[in-house]
Amino acid sequence: MRKIGKLNWAFSGGRIPFDSTGEEPVFNSHDKISVLNTSEEEANIEIFIFYGNQAPVGTYEVKIKPQRLRKIRINDLIDPEAVALERNYGCYVRSNIPVVVQFSRIDTGQNANAIMGTMAFPADKK
Amino acid sequence: MRKIGKLNWAFSGGRIPFDSTGEEPVFNSHDKISVLNTSEEEANIEIFIFYGNQAPVGTYEVKIKPQRLRKIRINDLIDPEAVALERNYGCYVRSNIPVVVQFSRIDTGQNANAIMGTMAFPADKK
Amino acid sequence: MRKIGKLNWAFSGGRIPFDSTGEEPVFNSHDKISVLNTSEEEANIEIFIFYGNQAPVGTYEVKIKPQRLRKIRINDLIDPEAVALERNYGCYVRSNIPVVVQFSRIDTGQNANAIMGTMAFPADKK
Amino acid sequence: MRKIGKLNWAFSGGRIPFDSTGEEPVFNSHDKISVLNTSEEEANIEIFIFYGNQAPVGTYEVKIKPQRLRKIRINDLIDPEAVALERNYGCYVRSNIPVVVQFSRIDTGQNANAIMGTMAFPADKK
Repeated sequence: MRKIGKLNWAFSGGRIPFDSTGEEPVFNSHDKISVLNTSEEEANIEIFIFYGNQAPVGTYEVKIKPQRLRKIRINDLIDPEAVALERNYGCYVRSNIPVVVQFSRIDTGQNANAIMGTMAFPADKK
Repeated sequence: MRKIGKLNWAFSGGRIPFDSTGEEPVFNSHDKISVLNTSEEEANIEIFIFYGNQAPVGTYEVKIKPQRLRKIRINDLIDPEAVALERNYGCYVRSNIPVVVQFSRIDTGQNANAIMGTMAFPADKK
Repeated sequence: MRKIGKLNWAFSGGRIPFDSTGEEPVFNSHDKISVLNTSEEEANIEIFIFYGNQAPVGTYEVKIKPQRLRKIRINDLIDPEAVALERNYGCYVRSNIPVVVQFSRIDTGQNANAIMGTMAFPADKK
Repeated sequence: MRKIGKLNWAFSGGRIPFDSTGEEPVFNSHDKISVLNTSEEEANIEIFIFYGNQAPVGTYEVKIKPQRLRKIRINDLIDPEAVALERNYGCYVRSNIPVVVQFSRIDTGQNANAIMGTMAFPADKK
C-alpha cells in the first residue's frame, strides 16, 4: 500500500491536566498523539514540545512499524525530559516518510465530564 | 453538479468503545464514517482498518449512490472481518471519484456523558 | 482587507436532532453554518443539502455583507424546502468570492449533555 | 528549527459566553487562540475580529517569542476595544512568519457541562 499523509504535523493547543476522576486507563485525563503508518517501511518520527516560558524540549524519537497504528501518550514522553503537568504546550512532529497524525484529549478532571478535542495541522511546506 | 472532495482520506484516532448507556440507536456508542458523493456517478470506496499489533484488515467495499450521503458504522464492517471492540484503530479510505469524508464518534459509556470527536484528513497526494 | 478563504466547502456529518432540553436560544439543539466574509464585496452563497435516500435539495441562497459574519441555522433553511429533523444530511456550500465556513453542532437532547462538533472541509479543486 | 505553519488563519465560529460555573481559571468559559512559533525569529501577528452587525475591530497586535507557544484569551483583547460577550464573532489572524494557530473553546455556563470545539482554517493563498 502506498504512503498516505504528510511529513510534518503540528498543533498548538496542548495541555496535560492534573486531576482525574475517570476510571483507569480509558478515561484517565490524557493527551495522545495517534500516528498511522500505512506504508511498508518503518516510520521514524521526531517530536518536539514547545512551552510558553522555556526552551523547547526534544528530540523525542518514536518508531512506527510498517502498516501499523501507534498511540503515544504525552505523559509517556520522558526521554530526554518528562512533559510538565498543568502547562500549556505545543507540539511539532516530523517524520521520515508520510504518516497521518491526530491529536486527541480527554479531560475528566472537571466534575467527571469528559472533554475531547482533536486536531492536527499538516504543516508540510508547499 | 460537479465532483466535490478528494480521492484519499485517513484518520488515526479511532476506537470502538464497549459499554454503552445511551438509548438505541441514536446515542449508542459508535464510530461512523460519513461519505458525501455530490457527483452524478456512483462512488466506489475501499476501506482499510489498521491496528497497533496486527496486520491491516480490508478491503471493505462500499458504494455511495450519485448525489447521496452514506453513513457507515464501523461496527457494521464485517466482511472480510468484524472490527474489534475496545481497540484503537486507524482508517484509510480511497475512492474512485472525489468524495467528502467525515469521521465522528459518540461514546456514552462513561457516566452517560457523550463524547464526540470529528476528523478526517484529506490525504491526496499532489 | 483581502479576501480570505475558499470558494467551495462541504461537510458530510450533519444531523438535526429532534429533542432539546437546553434553554432557548443559545443551547437549543441545532446545526449551524458560520460564514465569514472578510472582503469588501458582498458574498453570495448557494447551499445544497444531501440526504441518504432522496434527491438533494437546493438552491438555498444566502448573502453575507462585506466584512461581516453570518450564522445560518440549518433549521432556518426553508425555501425551497425545510431541512428534515432527525435525518442525516451532508452539505455543500459554494460562494462567488472566497469565504471561511465552519459547521457547528450543539445537541442537548441527551440528558442535557451538550455535544459540539465542528468541521468544514475546504473543497476547492487543486 | 525551520518555520512551521502558515501566514494566514481564520475561523468563523467564535462566541464568548456570559455565564460560567467552572472553577477559575482553568474551566472558566473562554475562547482562546493558541499560537505556536517554531522559528528562531519573533512572530508579529495581527488579529481582526468580525461581527454580524457592525464593522470589524482591530488591529490587535501580539508578539510571539522565538520557539515559544502563546495562548491568547479573546477576553484579554482590549486594545483598541474589548470583544463583546454573548456575541458571535469570526477571527482573522495574519503573521509575518509562518505560525500554527488553533482556536479552542470551553463553555461551562450550561449545567457545568464543558464544551470544547477546536478549529482553525489555514487561509493562505497559493
